[in-house]
Amino acid sequence: MLVEKSTTFNCATIYPSLCIRVDADIGTTITMNVAEFRKRGKEMVDYVADYMEGIHRRQVYPDVEPGYLRPLIPDSAPQEPETFENIMKDIEQIIMPGVTHWHSPYFFAYFPTASSYPAMLADMLSGAIGCIGFSWIASPACTELETVMLDWLGKMINLPEAFLAGRDGEGGGVIQGSASEATLVTLLAARTKVIRQLQAKSPGLTEGAIMDKLVAYASDQSHSSVERAGLIGGVKLKMIPSDDKFSLRGSALRKILDEDKAAGLIPFFVVATLGTTPCCSFDNLLELGPICNKENIWMHIDAAYAGSAFICPEFRHFLNGVEFADSYNFNPHKWLLVNFDCSAMWVKKRADLIGAFKLDPLYLQHHNQESGLVTDYRHWQIPLGRRFRSLKMWFVFRMYGVKGLQAYIRKHVKLSHEFESLVRQDSRFEICAEVVLGLVCFRIKGSNELNEMLLERINKAKKIHLVPCHLQDKFVLRFAICSRTVESIHIQQAWQHITELAAELLKEGKEQKMN
Amino acid sequence: MLVEKSTTFNCATIYPSLCIRVDADIGTTITMNVAEFRKRGKEMVDYVADYMEGIHRRQVYPDVEPGYLRPLIPDSAPQEPETFENIMKDIEQIIMPGVTHWHSPYFFAYFPTASSYPAMLADMLSGAIGCIGFSWIASPACTELETVMLDWLGKMINLPEAFLAGRDGEGGGVIQGSASEATLVTLLAARTKVIRQLQAKSPGLTEGAIMDKLVAYASDQSHSSVERAGLIGGVKLKMIPSDDKFSLRGSALRKILDEDKAAGLIPFFVVATLGTTPCCSFDNLLELGPICNKENIWMHIDAAYAGSAFICPEFRHFLNGVEFADSYNFNPHKWLLVNFDCSAMWVKKRADLIGAFKLDPLYLQHHNQESGLVTDYRHWQIPLGRRFRSLKMWFVFRMYGVKGLQAYIRKHVKLSHEFESLVRQDSRFEICAEVVLGLVCFRIKGSNELNEMLLERINKAKKIHLVPCHLQDKFVLRFAICSRTVESIHIQQAWQHITELAAELLKEGKEQKMN
Repeated sequence: MLVEKSTTFNCATIYPSLCIRVDADIGTTITMNVAEFRKRGKEMVDYVADYMEGIHRRQVYPDVEPGYLRPLIPDSAPQEPETFENIMKDIEQIIMPGVTHWHSPYFFAYFPTASSYPAMLADMLSGAIGCIGFSWIASPACTELETVMLDWLGKMINLPEAFLAGRDGEGGGVIQGSASEATLVTLLAARTKVIRQLQAKSPGLTEGAIMDKLVAYASDQSHSSVERAGLIGGVKLKMIPSDDKFSLRGSALRKILDEDKAAGLIPFFVVATLGTTPCCSFDNLLELGPICNKENIWMHIDAAYAGSAFICPEFRHFLNGVEFADSYNFNPHKWLLVNFDCSAMWVKKRADLIGAFKLDPLYLQHHNQESGLVTDYRHWQIPLGRRFRSLKMWFVFRMYGVKGLQAYIRKHVKLSHEFESLVRQDSRFEICAEVVLGLVCFRIKGSNELNEMLLERINKAKKIHLVPCHLQDKFVLRFAICSRTVESIHIQQAWQHITELAAELLKEGKEQKMN
Repeated sequence: MLVEKSTTFNCATIYPSLCIRVDADIGTTITMNVAEFRKRGKEMVDYVADYMEGIHRRQVYPDVEPGYLRPLIPDSAPQEPETFENIMKDIEQIIMPGVTHWHSPYFFAYFPTASSYPAMLADMLSGAIGCIGFSWIASPACTELETVMLDWLGKMINLPEAFLAGRDGEGGGVIQGSASEATLVTLLAARTKVIRQLQAKSPGLTEGAIMDKLVAYASDQSHSSVERAGLIGGVKLKMIPSDDKFSLRGSALRKILDEDKAAGLIPFFVVATLGTTPCCSFDNLLELGPICNKENIWMHIDAAYAGSAFICPEFRHFLNGVEFADSYNFNPHKWLLVNFDCSAMWVKKRADLIGAFKLDPLYLQHHNQESGLVTDYRHWQIPLGRRFRSLKMWFVFRMYGVKGLQAYIRKHVKLSHEFESLVRQDSRFEICAEVVLGLVCFRIKGSNELNEMLLERINKAKKIHLVPCHLQDKFVLRFAICSRTVESIHIQQAWQHITELAAELLKEGKEQKMN
């Protein structure tokens, strides 16, 4: 631990050039000065590189039991500073044994979370700049790069012009922390819009009376965050049955809209999902969109996982119908190599968002804010503060190039089809939903109990990690291509491992029957 | 740009040890492999160190006009990868000219945002682990370190035992992204609680009918995010006049509660602020708390900025009365050297939070979740995903030690009193609110117009950066001690600069009167 006396201000004489160099942290002691940071920072870069390089050797899923960590560390913070070496020692001894390694090539659970070296480099820079970009003036570069990066990304997926900010558009993009926030923010904007419209017509109507009648819709395959947005927004959220391909169809929406309107309810918001969490199915935008437009219902599209694939022309057709939507969201932090958090959201009319949230205390006002060119992103989101996250997009887009990103998506899709084909070659197993992108839903032909036991054995063996889902009352295993470094060999190993565990299970079952 | 052929899988033969080393990113090309990351990561560490070391030489506040950035970069993402060198060149040429340097020792605007080398190191590690810790199993270390760090921090500020998780407590802490989210989450929890209570008594009552009557309260000095939480939650939020010291008092709350209850409204939520944004005033917890408890009103305390100071025994008395609160929040990412985002929030009864948000789809369920030791933080917050942010707290608390952190707070408070004393020595100026922590509210004795002109000149000169506030119709300048590296010399320079500009202004005013 480096402790130095406070630096003397030897530049003080050259004021007024305002050039004073001060390293002193806290008056008389320096906990970590810049020289120490240079040293430790480089050590950390090597630690990170070693971690990424050796991650396939770590057990993907930890052995620890709940409560493992507390006994390993002191009950309270130390009074005196500790050394960096001590802390780094504890990383391997205390932290790593409890880490689920999301970037291991043996991690096939949930959906991917993005990780790439360019994004990590950008995040280091973002941490150093450390601006809180809630308004344009609080750091113009932070706001403006974000607007332009969302335009870049919008063009990469061929989003209709109306969603782009451009130089004088009414729409535009913003980085949210997560798809949950995007759904919530758009639901709230839609709620505000419809309440204002109804109160304009009938000034006597209270907000509560309207909210009692408001109803939002999503497919029964939609993410739990959609239901949560309804809870938070204080409105009904109805789950509409999807069809046999787990897709929400226009006819199903039409039916419930007619029923609800007849019952005096006020439909105002529909979430269509592209790439559902259970099985990566796609709602039918071309059927849903015209209905929403006709009924004056805000259509939000949640493509959290699948959205990244739309940078490939061969997958772009899933997004057809986005022209009917009011807002669109997907997570580059899932599948586009931009580390968490970076959820991209676009709206056609930014005034709808801003109108729902704008409050302007004096300490947050600034001269430029009435200019059409100025975006104050605090009006677009739940929190006030925000990090300089667009740097990650800028680094990743430029260092991979669109072609590199497309190649990355295609590699994952190819690997999922490889796994699918292994499953299909084994008559003991079945594929449970069409494999379109990087997710394979499969199961042993047999009871749910059998499949639950298989999953339990997989996750107890801890060589790979999977999570399940339910599809039409069937307990199904989800095999998601996740890691940046996953290759064909890992898929083959995983399948061999799964079939070995399945064979054991099936053998035990037969033996039990015989006894 | 390094482009290599795909690595051959030369370890494949040693399966089943599951040891395959793969660097190949996207099949046939590597955009940035681990060797390149080691090199570029170390260059970035030096860039960051250079930036921090030389930040006092950069103009604190940028010269750019709205829309400056778009013409400087291409209209769309490149198809082919670009080099790291190109990107780094653009950082200085395109990004830095548009950055407001929040960590410059000449930045005195808003409130501080934290920055320290230990936090930056921890963030590098967090980015590499890159787990999404929404549930215990999604990364046990991520969840458990957070719970213990919030206990550490709670003990540092001597928070009542009821707020700590401990081994079997009913309370506990969580890291939110911002104080705005903490206020929103607690308001929603309080809303759910009161709605359930009322519906249990009167099952016929609709949610909308109840929400029309719900009313929350905060001081007229509270942050705009409180009003926003009311908007989002769909409930009335009333701003109660504060006293002549900008403090919300029990008598004022009592009065409006009586009026509102007589009018049939249902008070359910009070936000007390410790360290208001305009002038760092403190609401009177010891008066407000017993009223809230008696009236069955959820009391949330927002100490976003001031809360860090409570680690010093001499400032802890401001928190007296927290024992009456249901939830408490402050931002270590403001003043406790933990880089954004890291907003610490505690609740006495975590069941109240979880009850408001819990939804459990199969793909997020896990075996351990019913154990009392398991915390699934996704039920505590708006987003689902979350970064491994507690590492930042762990690094900072250990590398500074409590004493180092206390010294840091005390240094800032000393500097604000130094500035206060400079203002008080100049009879042309007045101090507008008691200086308690790191904020000085001051103005020229005279009209609001004069002070607006002074601020405009300060922010045009761009040697220092300030923002204003209104205090009882007076336009006031806020001088906040912000930077980790700010020293007495910067305060003196800032004051000399301000008085020079003020003198010019006053001279011009006199000359105009004479003409």
